[in-house]
Amino acid sequence: VNIHEADIPGIGHKFQIETRNQEKLVIIFHDDGRRELYLADKRNPDEMQFILQLDDDEARQLAGIIGGMSYIPKTL
Amino acid sequence: VNIHEADIPGIGHKFQIETRNQEKLVIIFHDDGRRELYLADKRNPDEMQFILQLDDDEARQLAGIIGGMSYIPKTL
Repeated sequence: VNIHEADIPGIGHKFQIETRNQEKLVIIFHDDGRRELYLADKRNPDEMQFILQLDDDEARQLAGIIGGMSYIPKTL
Repeated sequence: VNIHEADIPGIGHKFQIETRNQEKLVIIFHDDGRRELYLADKRNPDEMQFILQLDDDEARQLAGIIGGMSYIPKTL
């Protein structure tokens, strides 16, 4: 993955992530801990689609699931 | 968050996550470690939109970012 990050003054912090499969995800961290996830349109990368809003505790739970702390794939 | 999980024989494992903000996310774990993320359409929850495909290492990196291991929001 390709990761760019930057502060957004007055709002928080932004991560732009490009995956091996060429999906572009943007994660906005608000100063209060809330995260917003956006996905770029593959045909029009300036067009961002809102995906999810997560509170800090939800983001941590989701991170645990995605990261594989809860379920470990069989062949790994 | 509301979490349901189930094995998918021959494929892997599935998590269904409903957030406080009423978004429904599905994460499919393939046995080889690959994850696929889908989002349910709010008006038609049976309609799933493909969002992202992640290899195991990408999923772990993304989990670290979302979970706040990389950037900690200011007021937390």
